[in-house]
Amino acid sequence: MKYPSVGIKPIEKKHLDAAGKHLDNLTKPRGSLGSLEDVAARLFAMGGGRIPIVVEPAVMLTVAGDHGVAAQNVSPYPQIVTRQMVGNFLDGGAAVNVLCRRAGMDLHIVDAGCAGGPFERHPMLLDRRLGDGTADISRGPAMSREVCLGGIEKGIALAEDFATRGYACIGTGEMGIANSTAAAALYCALLRLEPDEAVGPGAGADQTMLFHKIEIVRQALRVNAALLRDDDPASVLAALGGFEIAVLCGIMLGAAARGLPVLIDGFICSAAYAAAVKICPDMSGYAILSHSSAEPGHVRAMQKLVPDQRPLLSLGMRLGEGTGAAAAYPLVCCAAAVYNEMATFTSAGVSGA
Amino acid sequence: MKYPSVGIKPIEKKHLDAAGKHLDNLTKPRGSLGSLEDVAARLFAMGGGRIPIVVEPAVMLTVAGDHGVAAQNVSPYPQIVTRQMVGNFLDGGAAVNVLCRRAGMDLHIVDAGCAGGPFERHPMLLDRRLGDGTADISRGPAMSREVCLGGIEKGIALAEDFATRGYACIGTGEMGIANSTAAAALYCALLRLEPDEAVGPGAGADQTMLFHKIEIVRQALRVNAALLRDDDPASVLAALGGFEIAVLCGIMLGAAARGLPVLIDGFICSAAYAAAVKICPDMSGYAILSHSSAEPGHVRAMQKLVPDQRPLLSLGMRLGEGTGAAAAYPLVCCAAAVYNEMATFTSAGVSGA
Repeated sequence: MKYPSVGIKPIEKKHLDAAGKHLDNLTKPRGSLGSLEDVAARLFAMGGGRIPIVVEPAVMLTVAGDHGVAAQNVSPYPQIVTRQMVGNFLDGGAAVNVLCRRAGMDLHIVDAGCAGGPFERHPMLLDRRLGDGTADISRGPAMSREVCLGGIEKGIALAEDFATRGYACIGTGEMGIANSTAAAALYCALLRLEPDEAVGPGAGADQTMLFHKIEIVRQALRVNAALLRDDDPASVLAALGGFEIAVLCGIMLGAAARGLPVLIDGFICSAAYAAAVKICPDMSGYAILSHSSAEPGHVRAMQKLVPDQRPLLSLGMRLGEGTGAAAAYPLVCCAAAVYNEMATFTSAGVSGA
Repeated sequence: MKYPSVGIKPIEKKHLDAAGKHLDNLTKPRGSLGSLEDVAARLFAMGGGRIPIVVEPAVMLTVAGDHGVAAQNVSPYPQIVTRQMVGNFLDGGAAVNVLCRRAGMDLHIVDAGCAGGPFERHPMLLDRRLGDGTADISRGPAMSREVCLGGIEKGIALAEDFATRGYACIGTGEMGIANSTAAAALYCALLRLEPDEAVGPGAGADQTMLFHKIEIVRQALRVNAALLRDDDPASVLAALGGFEIAVLCGIMLGAAARGLPVLIDGFICSAAYAAAVKICPDMSGYAILSHSSAEPGHVRAMQKLVPDQRPLLSLGMRLGEGTGAAAAYPLVCCAAAVYNEMATFTSAGVSGA
């Protein structure tokens, strides 16, 4: 099975340059809005040079899935919490609900394969199940390469669908007990981090659990070694990833293919991002790193993957769900508004330096 | 003349503790929302333990004033830009206008003493003039202690007025060509920074101008030495500050006296904050550092003044006007909403760790 063809157009330098010129004419010292100006220029280029820059409305896609490796005592929370938290999302009581309401983002929950079978129908819920939780990566591949590619395709189709419905920005989020173990394993295989660099406490592992988690990641890398091929990132994603991570990878590719900015959440979404960039390096032009996770491996991984990209926020958050992306989205709106709405020195009659 | 009596109640530890307990019961790993949880707990304590936490509506007070030291070639921009930028604010075209509109903050411009006389009346403009620009701090005091205390009183009254009108949060901003020189001098005198630690490029000084600016600050500290008394921060503020800085200091004291959170903008507003904390140390309990300015002295100064407070954003911004405070305000709203709206483990039926 071949990679899905997504047709991502590289960001063009001429648009970045044109944006830089426009930003330098606005009534402020050059560059004085820092990262907001960088984001504004990138948004302009993502849109192919169209003005005004449009980043509204935005949708948050929080993708949930279960992990066989949860059986290996790598999380302080039982696996059932994935399912319970999906219920909490649908009831509107989780952190991502609160932050999406604040940010004005429409939230949908994607079931990519929670254990325990499909959920009852709900207007916020999208069923994109790839199975009833993955297999245990410490004993073999999480899923087959075919299932993984199917998940990527589902993600691409989701992004396509929301783009067609008029959304101008996509936020990413996830839920899945033990998925920080899967994400750490992916960083090791895709970016050559060492397990002790990539593994962190996740949702709250203590020191003993942390050491055990590192060993489980080592074991996952060992038993899946034959599948961890540099020339086949989907094989790596299938071996070590998760259903939600595969779908998120597809969402990122699909958003980029439609020229939409996609907000990368934290440690787990960034592992999907790493896979997406390995599949199609031009994808990174459409990604905005929303925050630095408190999970220590996150900054290391992003420095290796996209050394020129700097997360917008650094608030010591480590919750997932899309909370970092939702917290950062208002800054993306600020960047677009600065570009679209500020006066120039000439129009405002303000003297230059 | 004595200090204005503002009656600031210290933040109570019992409220911080109660907030911590509430936050730990919400459906997320403990502490996993990082600084948002710290801010939420502090907001709860600022409000004296009232729920829900209310931070809306918010007002941004951007205070403008001119500086005699602008004559000393310490800024690449001519002094007239202060006045021109006030015009730009009133026309809605500056960065702070754009960011306040995005953040849902009502913006008012306070003329604390721009050179060239009063502005024409305008619904956004508040006339609180202390003079027609300060005197040159490199030759003597910027203003008399009486004028400075009058400015602080005007600021306190402004905060009182907006609190009475129902505003639940106050943002601070400033405009004044050469005011980064005044702010740097204040950091040296109030916090014992060295001039070469406190002075930075401001709106864009090159290396030659930067060295000259350091010399001007040294000279200001020398000629005003007799006024720089540790036991009299208002005397320091009068000698080295600016009209807008004095009024901002009062706004901060007045907001704290009314139990309102006050968002400290960047390098210049933080100098007003340093003066406010020296006048009344309990004021700091009501302050939220919105961002780390790219101006190198800012982080150093805040580490000395309030080592336990961490700025919310670090975007490399160095524009002033209140842009950092407006960019950070949505995060303050997020913190309040998390506290007010999230489900608990029990209410959501989610298993704990």
